[in-house]
Amino acid sequence: MSQKNYLRHNCPIAQTLGVVGGQWTLLIARNLINGINKFDGIQKNLNISRNLLTQRLKYMELSGLTKKTIPDGKRRAIYLPTKKCFDLTNTLLALSEWSEKWIPDPSGPRIYVSKKTNGKPLKLALIPAEKLESYGENEFQLDFGTAKF
Amino acid sequence: MSQKNYLRHNCPIAQTLGVVGGQWTLLIARNLINGINKFDGIQKNLNISRNLLTQRLKYMELSGLTKKTIPDGKRRAIYLPTKKCFDLTNTLLALSEWSEKWIPDPSGPRIYVSKKTNGKPLKLALIPAEKLESYGENEFQLDFGTAKF
Repeated sequence: MSQKNYLRHNCPIAQTLGVVGGQWTLLIARNLINGINKFDGIQKNLNISRNLLTQRLKYMELSGLTKKTIPDGKRRAIYLPTKKCFDLTNTLLALSEWSEKWIPDPSGPRIYVSKKTNGKPLKLALIPAEKLESYGENEFQLDFGTAKF
Repeated sequence: MSQKNYLRHNCPIAQTLGVVGGQWTLLIARNLINGINKFDGIQKNLNISRNLLTQRLKYMELSGLTKKTIPDGKRRAIYLPTKKCFDLTNTLLALSEWSEKWIPDPSGPRIYVSKKTNGKPLKLALIPAEKLESYGENEFQLDFGTAKF
């Protein structure tokens, strides 16, 4: 992952990839958003070396994607997703929708996004910017129910 | 890029990354969608080795993301983006919007998406699935004007 090389391009796509395009980073973000927050849990889930995960989490901390915290009364640290990390949700869902369309699972979709207030399914769409506010932020819930990590 | 490893996860995010998560793949897709279709043009643009680009383009052909064609009367091949490749637009725009929010350029946004019929700016949003049709596909235009690749 030539992060420096990516960041040299004055292109917003390249620059985001410079931060999150490293191997496993988006899947770690997926886990953090999905509540898999302990080192051992993430490591077991991704089945990667402890060294590599340590390195990735450090980089994600430096990039402001996660905050390492030791909860009161606990010994083990957890990695909390920041707002900057939660804001990767559209990226994760765009990847997910592409997969469900082009390499679908025979048993049907695995990740569900629904409106908090009525449980109705939501999809990503390009809409007029002025209508953005009528589809408020944080009004959705993510269900990773049938996805097996 | 452990593509096999990613594809083992029954998770649509991981599976898409198994196809497009390799270094440079999404940036090559960005170029193809943006009309940079010749090997030399892409190579110069990304400043990567010819070997690596050859390998990436072969993998993208195998994955159905591009079709290598020699236009009538020309000697050099061009790489056309397929529908599967164009469908990565939401992913590319999600990456772009994240960047414009979290690592913005002092001179302002670089990639513009606007509605074809009236030129008004568009943004990605999670909307009720049943309203998807009212925001029809292919009614947008992408302007990579101020992004410098």
